[in-house]
Amino acid sequence: MAIRTYDEYLASLKRMRPNIYKFDELIEDVTTHPATRRTVEGHGQIYKLSADPGNHDTFLTASHLTGEPVSRYLSLIQSPEDMWANSRLKRTMFQKTGTCTGGRCVGWTAMNAMYAVTYDVDQAHGTDYHRRLKEWLLDAQKRDITISGALTDPKGDRAKAPSEQDDPDMFLRIVERRPDGIVVRGAKVMICGIAAANEIFVLPGSGYKEEDKDYAVSFVIPRDIPNLTIVETRHPSDDREYQEGFDAPVDEGGITQAYLFFEDVFIPNERVFMAGECKFAQNAVLNFICNYRAAIGGCVAGQGDVKIGAALLTARANGLNSKVFKDKVIQMQINNETTFGMGIAAAAMGKRHPSGAWFSDQLLSNVNKVLVATLPYETSRIAQDIAGGIAETGCIPSYKDFKSTKYGHLIAKYMRARASAESRMKAARLVEWATIGAGVPGCMHGGGSPDGAKLMIRSLGKVDEKVDLAKRLAGITEDLPEPGGK
Amino acid sequence: MAIRTYDEYLASLKRMRPNIYKFDELIEDVTTHPATRRTVEGHGQIYKLSADPGNHDTFLTASHLTGEPVSRYLSLIQSPEDMWANSRLKRTMFQKTGTCTGGRCVGWTAMNAMYAVTYDVDQAHGTDYHRRLKEWLLDAQKRDITISGALTDPKGDRAKAPSEQDDPDMFLRIVERRPDGIVVRGAKVMICGIAAANEIFVLPGSGYKEEDKDYAVSFVIPRDIPNLTIVETRHPSDDREYQEGFDAPVDEGGITQAYLFFEDVFIPNERVFMAGECKFAQNAVLNFICNYRAAIGGCVAGQGDVKIGAALLTARANGLNSKVFKDKVIQMQINNETTFGMGIAAAAMGKRHPSGAWFSDQLLSNVNKVLVATLPYETSRIAQDIAGGIAETGCIPSYKDFKSTKYGHLIAKYMRARASAESRMKAARLVEWATIGAGVPGCMHGGGSPDGAKLMIRSLGKVDEKVDLAKRLAGITEDLPEPGGK
Amino acid sequence: MAIRTYDEYLASLKRMRPNIYKFDELIEDVTTHPATRRTVEGHGQIYKLSADPGNHDTFLTASHLTGEPVSRYLSLIQSPEDMWANSRLKRTMFQKTGTCTGGRCVGWTAMNAMYAVTYDVDQAHGTDYHRRLKEWLLDAQKRDITISGALTDPKGDRAKAPSEQDDPDMFLRIVERRPDGIVVRGAKVMICGIAAANEIFVLPGSGYKEEDKDYAVSFVIPRDIPNLTIVETRHPSDDREYQEGFDAPVDEGGITQAYLFFEDVFIPNERVFMAGECKFAQNAVLNFICNYRAAIGGCVAGQGDVKIGAALLTARANGLNSKVFKDKVIQMQINNETTFGMGIAAAAMGKRHPSGAWFSDQLLSNVNKVLVATLPYETSRIAQDIAGGIAETGCIPSYKDFKSTKYGHLIAKYMRARASAESRMKAARLVEWATIGAGVPGCMHGGGSPDGAKLMIRSLGKVDEKVDLAKRLAGITEDLPEPGGK
Amino acid sequence: MAIRTYDEYLASLKRMRPNIYKFDELIEDVTTHPATRRTVEGHGQIYKLSADPGNHDTFLTASHLTGEPVSRYLSLIQSPEDMWANSRLKRTMFQKTGTCTGGRCVGWTAMNAMYAVTYDVDQAHGTDYHRRLKEWLLDAQKRDITISGALTDPKGDRAKAPSEQDDPDMFLRIVERRPDGIVVRGAKVMICGIAAANEIFVLPGSGYKEEDKDYAVSFVIPRDIPNLTIVETRHPSDDREYQEGFDAPVDEGGITQAYLFFEDVFIPNERVFMAGECKFAQNAVLNFICNYRAAIGGCVAGQGDVKIGAALLTARANGLNSKVFKDKVIQMQINNETTFGMGIAAAAMGKRHPSGAWFSDQLLSNVNKVLVATLPYETSRIAQDIAGGIAETGCIPSYKDFKSTKYGHLIAKYMRARASAESRMKAARLVEWATIGAGVPGCMHGGGSPDGAKLMIRSLGKVDEKVDLAKRLAGITEDLPEPGGK
Repeated sequence: MAIRTYDEYLASLKRMRPNIYKFDELIEDVTTHPATRRTVEGHGQIYKLSADPGNHDTFLTASHLTGEPVSRYLSLIQSPEDMWANSRLKRTMFQKTGTCTGGRCVGWTAMNAMYAVTYDVDQAHGTDYHRRLKEWLLDAQKRDITISGALTDPKGDRAKAPSEQDDPDMFLRIVERRPDGIVVRGAKVMICGIAAANEIFVLPGSGYKEEDKDYAVSFVIPRDIPNLTIVETRHPSDDREYQEGFDAPVDEGGITQAYLFFEDVFIPNERVFMAGECKFAQNAVLNFICNYRAAIGGCVAGQGDVKIGAALLTARANGLNSKVFKDKVIQMQINNETTFGMGIAAAAMGKRHPSGAWFSDQLLSNVNKVLVATLPYETSRIAQDIAGGIAETGCIPSYKDFKSTKYGHLIAKYMRARASAESRMKAARLVEWATIGAGVPGCMHGGGSPDGAKLMIRSLGKVDEKVDLAKRLAGITEDLPEPGGK
Repeated sequence: MAIRTYDEYLASLKRMRPNIYKFDELIEDVTTHPATRRTVEGHGQIYKLSADPGNHDTFLTASHLTGEPVSRYLSLIQSPEDMWANSRLKRTMFQKTGTCTGGRCVGWTAMNAMYAVTYDVDQAHGTDYHRRLKEWLLDAQKRDITISGALTDPKGDRAKAPSEQDDPDMFLRIVERRPDGIVVRGAKVMICGIAAANEIFVLPGSGYKEEDKDYAVSFVIPRDIPNLTIVETRHPSDDREYQEGFDAPVDEGGITQAYLFFEDVFIPNERVFMAGECKFAQNAVLNFICNYRAAIGGCVAGQGDVKIGAALLTARANGLNSKVFKDKVIQMQINNETTFGMGIAAAAMGKRHPSGAWFSDQLLSNVNKVLVATLPYETSRIAQDIAGGIAETGCIPSYKDFKSTKYGHLIAKYMRARASAESRMKAARLVEWATIGAGVPGCMHGGGSPDGAKLMIRSLGKVDEKVDLAKRLAGITEDLPEPGGK
Repeated sequence: MAIRTYDEYLASLKRMRPNIYKFDELIEDVTTHPATRRTVEGHGQIYKLSADPGNHDTFLTASHLTGEPVSRYLSLIQSPEDMWANSRLKRTMFQKTGTCTGGRCVGWTAMNAMYAVTYDVDQAHGTDYHRRLKEWLLDAQKRDITISGALTDPKGDRAKAPSEQDDPDMFLRIVERRPDGIVVRGAKVMICGIAAANEIFVLPGSGYKEEDKDYAVSFVIPRDIPNLTIVETRHPSDDREYQEGFDAPVDEGGITQAYLFFEDVFIPNERVFMAGECKFAQNAVLNFICNYRAAIGGCVAGQGDVKIGAALLTARANGLNSKVFKDKVIQMQINNETTFGMGIAAAAMGKRHPSGAWFSDQLLSNVNKVLVATLPYETSRIAQDIAGGIAETGCIPSYKDFKSTKYGHLIAKYMRARASAESRMKAARLVEWATIGAGVPGCMHGGGSPDGAKLMIRSLGKVDEKVDLAKRLAGITEDLPEPGGK
Repeated sequence: MAIRTYDEYLASLKRMRPNIYKFDELIEDVTTHPATRRTVEGHGQIYKLSADPGNHDTFLTASHLTGEPVSRYLSLIQSPEDMWANSRLKRTMFQKTGTCTGGRCVGWTAMNAMYAVTYDVDQAHGTDYHRRLKEWLLDAQKRDITISGALTDPKGDRAKAPSEQDDPDMFLRIVERRPDGIVVRGAKVMICGIAAANEIFVLPGSGYKEEDKDYAVSFVIPRDIPNLTIVETRHPSDDREYQEGFDAPVDEGGITQAYLFFEDVFIPNERVFMAGECKFAQNAVLNFICNYRAAIGGCVAGQGDVKIGAALLTARANGLNSKVFKDKVIQMQINNETTFGMGIAAAAMGKRHPSGAWFSDQLLSNVNKVLVATLPYETSRIAQDIAGGIAETGCIPSYKDFKSTKYGHLIAKYMRARASAESRMKAARLVEWATIGAGVPGCMHGGGSPDGAKLMIRSLGKVDEKVDLAKRLAGITEDLPEPGGK
């Protein structure tokens, strides 16, 4: 069974060429550097948990290529059941890390999207992409690697197509086609979990025309490939991760989001899955979002579970029984289960692609995207409501002050409620972290914006059919076409 | 194939003893009387649609008893797929009738609930209920009858158990046990679709103790059984159903909700499925609500489809393009698909009972119940927003005024917009009917109240586990039990 | 003191020429006919209450013309305090009648709007309108009459200006100018409280250009003026008003909304306040909506008070303590006080016109309009939630069934809870009436649509200034103009 | 005119004894130290703006003691107009600083609260507090000082009264009464703007009984009084304030919230305004919250203005026209104007106290508190929605990376859209700062929790009267008292 251990995983990351920066500093070892250590530990929990036979159902499945157990994160999703396992896995990982382990799920979903697209492109163009992808996947399963995914281009002026931009590099593009591979230039931005990844699966954007065909490109690369420079973004309260103590309350979990700069990176053919077939770029994106926007409901449900727990934990520390907050907790639960459930439903109503891949229902997935951009915000607000002023903006002294020899005893004295000052501060910091701090995942725009989802809902919702059924019910026979625009 | 025709269905209703009243008048023929004709037509559409081979997937399935095609409404639900078909069927019927055909789905769900309960009771008590139910069901399938369901007792003083009430009849109860059957007294109230039904499946309430055992009773009866008196309730704008014209805009659909008075009704043993096994009454209710509260999301989605259609139809009649209302329509769609989807999810996450019956996930079903009590209200509000003042409270002259020889021409002149006055009035009446009129189904409290659902959510949500995972994340080791109540 | 008695008010209505129809029947006496009696009684309560010296502060004020006490409904609003009294008066009247007494407040607000406009027009054109209005008002105060107001034109095809319509009558217009007056043709639709009014104050619409000048017309007429035909619209469950018993639960209150057809009505000059000054028509509308949309918050707060009371009354009848619903009641209160308060605020932030009239702040008034189109819907939903299934759609037998000699005793037996069946049914009917029945006022579109209010909010909100202050805060010096439209 | 200059203000702060710590470091000069400099600059803007005659209406008013112009922050609020000026002032300061200048408004409101309470206590007990307060105030006006306010006690175990706590110091208390003053011990926590203040006005908590009388204490002290130790809390992303560049995007504005530890602080009699009159402690709190919860609506409206501006600024930088987000901007405006307006309304409906102080309406103020705990969260969400992924969690490289000689040019290249990379990053950082960063004020719990406000709404809302008016409307004569509790 090709399941790596946690130690093997860390070792694999240590072996890689350092090419990640933050605060103008090269990160020599992502497994120990404060900017990246937490996200590595978060992703590392996957290897730890996978090692426990009690968790095999959650984390492993049979490879459709070999029948052998492989990580779900490296598997082809072939059924609603596989998607449901995806949702559950995401919820579990949020519960374990308090935040996002996006260095795996995006790559997973991207690979699944391209599994079907390569199949379709080969059918249409007689290309060889699908075999390449399967061979690479087989090898990836054997190595049990962590694969992040990269989707978002910088985009430049939003009013212009890629080929119309002043600077043609504002979307990642092929600048050279060689017999043995392609050379790409550009950037991918806001990419999650890169520091914890061994490889990066790159997807094209969508809406490309013939003149944009050099932008229709998909491939997979080692994270430390030559000419790739990575800069980690800063996120709320990230300096605390460089500091001692519980101000950054979660030790084995954390988010990183990176900007990837491709300065003429060479990709060998065997790792290229699209190189100019612009009509199929949109399929890649559609395949990606239907599954991604379904399962993300599991993410925010898991994060919501943490918010419920952290808020009630703080209330306990304050001396308050959870019954005081009954209706609020129920509303948080409803929010959680709604995003979780809608992902389950989208998966259930999905369709199997001829390649064997399962894609969730677009309408329900996109509805879920909007819910994911809305409900967790209410959940956060309620968590802050329950947990009180010390949690709302984390309004308590720092760990360093708590440890002060001059006045730390005063903090300890006055922060004590039903729980000790330390427990109370830790609980409040967890609420802050999960609702307004470094634990907040960027779920509103991650995987695309709610406005994009709304456009899809509008177009998939068969509104004209609804007008027709109303006409029939009302017994109207007069022809009533849509009036001219406003 | 034992599928009845529409005409056979009507004939079967005509043959029954008149025992339904409204406005102190006995309804001699439910198929023609204005108080009941529309609900009969609504239910009748099921027979019409079932006759079309193109609809067989939606309306028919294989009997688990014979393998023969039977109406889904008479089938055992054995899988998520069966539940999804249930949701789709309900949505379709709302689209076709604009409202509720509750004379079928409640009976269907009740039968399924008791299918499992009779199995369990027999295991525990050596009784014979399960065989009785199967034999009756086999016969019902052969006759392809319409079976409504009855659940709600009058309940009297809500602070008292059935056996503590001043009047012991406030919950339906066994007043006599004979060798060949039982005699029951009491009432069931707010029962949907009785006038369209051939038989009525009666469920017990829940929360009964040993001293309440005479209240733990379930059976099925012909609607016209001796000593049963039925009074139809009045609903918004129901007088219009007695009048000519389009003020009651939907002709083949309508709601009735009845009060059933049992004045010592005798039920032969073969139709009795519970008679005192009070510990199992709660199971009957739980089995009922998990499937009912899942699939009801399909109902309100279908009703929401009609609201979208009717609102945009009115806007078209007014001369306004639907783009003006884009965001509003998307919000309505989101509301629709959320309740629909949550039902799908609850079904997907359900469990198979040893009897073969499939029951949806309680947590997700109850979350859906709360959504169903909330989102359709917003959808109605938006429909009124889009459709304008003429639809908000149906603020237009009556059909009779429209036909007035004195001034009807003035109404026709001034009600005309882009569409004719008649089309515009019909469209506006449909909005009124669906949002504030006779078409509004009682979905908030139907199948139980949202407050009851919230209590279940609270108890099923494993909140303590969430506190524990937060403790782990925050690195708190201090013991922090729930403080004493407020 | 020129304050009429209730009896004098009724007598004044009885004296008028019958010109109101409903259901193709001429209403001979609006004070006794079931279609209009309730709205007359609702408006009649104003006279009853005004007679009580304890209510003088609420109902009366000093005429700015004579200094004598007059009904507030006939007064010039000169200060925030006058507007606050307006809000309180409206809230009081909703509490007393359960619904709208719009036969007074629209006329009041219309008169105030034109008080300023006539002043402005006279300044610009040397006309004589302001004197006419003051003289008429003086007389109206002396007679203490009830004056309704009429604003909404049929509008025809919404994409066309009045003068572009196929039928030029789709907006009320001057068809003839005579030395002694004007002749008008057209209609005003959805006009509240006409049956209870002695006179009707007519406002122009807005957005008129030079070619539309015949549409810029304002005047006041006796309700029974020759060539005016009035048809009352039907509203939810209005047939119950023709029936005995408590199915229409409120006896001294009710809504009517009429269509007024002007078939060449002659208006003498002294009653004409605008006749072609098309540039000022918009001012009339703006003056109207700022005060109307402020004070309407008092209406829906009063209606909300009734919903709270009716819901808790039903809960009491069911045997449930209001603590069970604590959070829900608080939410209803918040909704009520928010619409009430925003009206108070709009009045406070208003401005005095040179004529002496006070006009509320447009931005806050229009914000309130949107709140009024939203919050009461949630309040209704909660009322139905609290009151249970018997109230949601009024799911109980009719009064006639309750009185049945055949089975009325069964209804009485089984409807009893903690309260008698009769009290419980009355309470539930009141909830139905106020949330989904004949008591629901058309507040969403009354006085203009929320979408219109939103456009005003957008334009009044000085969004560019907000961008500038953000630029300053962020220290951005680059010029960043608004990009070209999508 | 006793209006200090900005320079005099800074000088006054520099003169004070250092007693504020953060990160275990004593802050020698609050005007230059990174932990406190921004809040000082924010408060300093008040002095700068007050110096401009064009702002006098906003910032100054006539002292009721001398008739001389004084800062509004040091004035007695005597009318609705004074409260409206308060709301406008708060909104202005949020627009100028992007955040809270709570070092002035809390002290102001506290002084006003005690102005009335000292009057009442003197009437009841023959004490001398009111004269003391007036003399101190006269002197404070002469010096034009900045006075923060302190209200919140640590509270310990929330289930216990102050005198029942294991540690009696969990509420601030008098530990010694001397002829010339009192000695106090305890703490006040989460106190805003202390670093920018010259003095601190301390209020008691509420709900004290005779045995808690040593906790009923109010006084005013110099911030640097002996035995007072102050620790500043950490807040989201506060480390950025120690760093160069625009990651902390606002230079002249910032929040601090401190813990004040009183280790036997001596207060001379002339500065003591309550010392044991426990029955009046509650009045102090009630007087405080009615005005505070009214005017806080101005704060969140101002913050909302910044969010609108920052979101649209980022959209402009991205190249998107604001029309794309029309409905979203309108919703943000509605949220802003609703909290602003409710404060105006509460002030309008207030009452004058015999001392001359004006107190806003409790019901409307507390409704506003709940709105303030809800609506700004939606505004923040929408701001993130509009501004996109780069703003949601500030997902862009740090300033230090932007300036990197190694790869800064890549960031500049790829962050450019319609605006330069720098402008775009600044705009996005402002959205982050205002919605999830250091600019977020703790308005949900500041000045008390929404749950406390809800309890007041429930008790002030006269719910029983509403039940009575519903009974009257429904014509119910049966006595229907509230049923026994659940």
